[in-house]
Amino acid sequence: MKLTFSPASPFARKVRIAAIELGLIDRIELVPTSVAPGQANDDYSKITPVKKLPVLILDNGDVILDSYVIVEYLDELAGGGKLIPSSGPDRWKVKSDHSLLQGMLDSMLLCRYENMVRPKELKWQAWADDHWNRAWKGMARFNEKTDVLSRPLDIVQIALTCVLGYADFRYADCGWREAYPNLAAFHERMLSRPSVKISLPPKA
Amino acid sequence: MKLTFSPASPFARKVRIAAIELGLIDRIELVPTSVAPGQANDDYSKITPVKKLPVLILDNGDVILDSYVIVEYLDELAGGGKLIPSSGPDRWKVKSDHSLLQGMLDSMLLCRYENMVRPKELKWQAWADDHWNRAWKGMARFNEKTDVLSRPLDIVQIALTCVLGYADFRYADCGWREAYPNLAAFHERMLSRPSVKISLPPKA
Repeated sequence: MKLTFSPASPFARKVRIAAIELGLIDRIELVPTSVAPGQANDDYSKITPVKKLPVLILDNGDVILDSYVIVEYLDELAGGGKLIPSSGPDRWKVKSDHSLLQGMLDSMLLCRYENMVRPKELKWQAWADDHWNRAWKGMARFNEKTDVLSRPLDIVQIALTCVLGYADFRYADCGWREAYPNLAAFHERMLSRPSVKISLPPKA
Repeated sequence: MKLTFSPASPFARKVRIAAIELGLIDRIELVPTSVAPGQANDDYSKITPVKKLPVLILDNGDVILDSYVIVEYLDELAGGGKLIPSSGPDRWKVKSDHSLLQGMLDSMLLCRYENMVRPKELKWQAWADDHWNRAWKGMARFNEKTDVLSRPLDIVQIALTCVLGYADFRYADCGWREAYPNLAAFHERMLSRPSVKISLPPKA
């Protein structure tokens, strides 16, 4: 299998960590892929018209997206119920928490595009603030979920690690550790995992 | 159960159509909810920090998001395997096709915010064009998937209907029917369903 990949993408990082934890990383070739907002990439458009990273390309050519569906696929390949509960109320809690984290990441990327990629004179501060606040309030929510932070590894913890790693990468001065001490302790614990350490984003 | 809802939201429409088709709409109260980019909404932030529509609020207070997860939940409630295959390769094809449609809708909304909501003098044309092209190329992809367009109803067809309905609603002159005749015929067939007809977006 092939995974379109960039070390700067928190969505690709999530899949990489999951694949390592599921024991499947040796079956996946990471294919360096670059996409930039506002720029065409006709080759990648042919693989996925929405041009998001990552997608998983199976050996038969089928393309699986998005990052969450890829993790579900890998989880099933690994026997099922490893990172996502296979049934019951916990399943919907995990899926919903993951959707929240996915939305937080989307907002952090939109905020980054607004601040750093869009031409400076076209910046709309209210939009950037709105999206940053969504991520920031989401962190507050997870800071209170001490049961989520301390249970055995799952996709919510992996996605949360990617949110916090992306905050360090793109918003190094935002002060999330001071604001959210439970998240700081959680992130420190997660860093003891080789999967988390090896996938840290590059220096900004 | 309560669903936060706006008749203009294609994501909320998708859940509404699914709930009608699954025979569950009578158990769901639609709660009118308004969110606008660049504006705070503290009440809704408390329900979901990322402030996206819709979320499903269960009778025990649990909040399910996003729109796809809600459809999965309703599908399971209706017995399972109704709108999303419960297993096998088709399951991943349906999920991946849905992810693509979700990304197309995200891009169409970003494009709309750029063109119509953001202050005019702050518009970045390359960004708007990039996102419109993602949706447009995605439509081309589905125009060729004649097997998807003609099979029994599933979540891909529902999401595609919401993409095309949103195109009519916000990009009335984009000419998708002329460019993609298979989609035009598909949409016409879908309009014979009361669930699709009753949920058409308001006049723009």
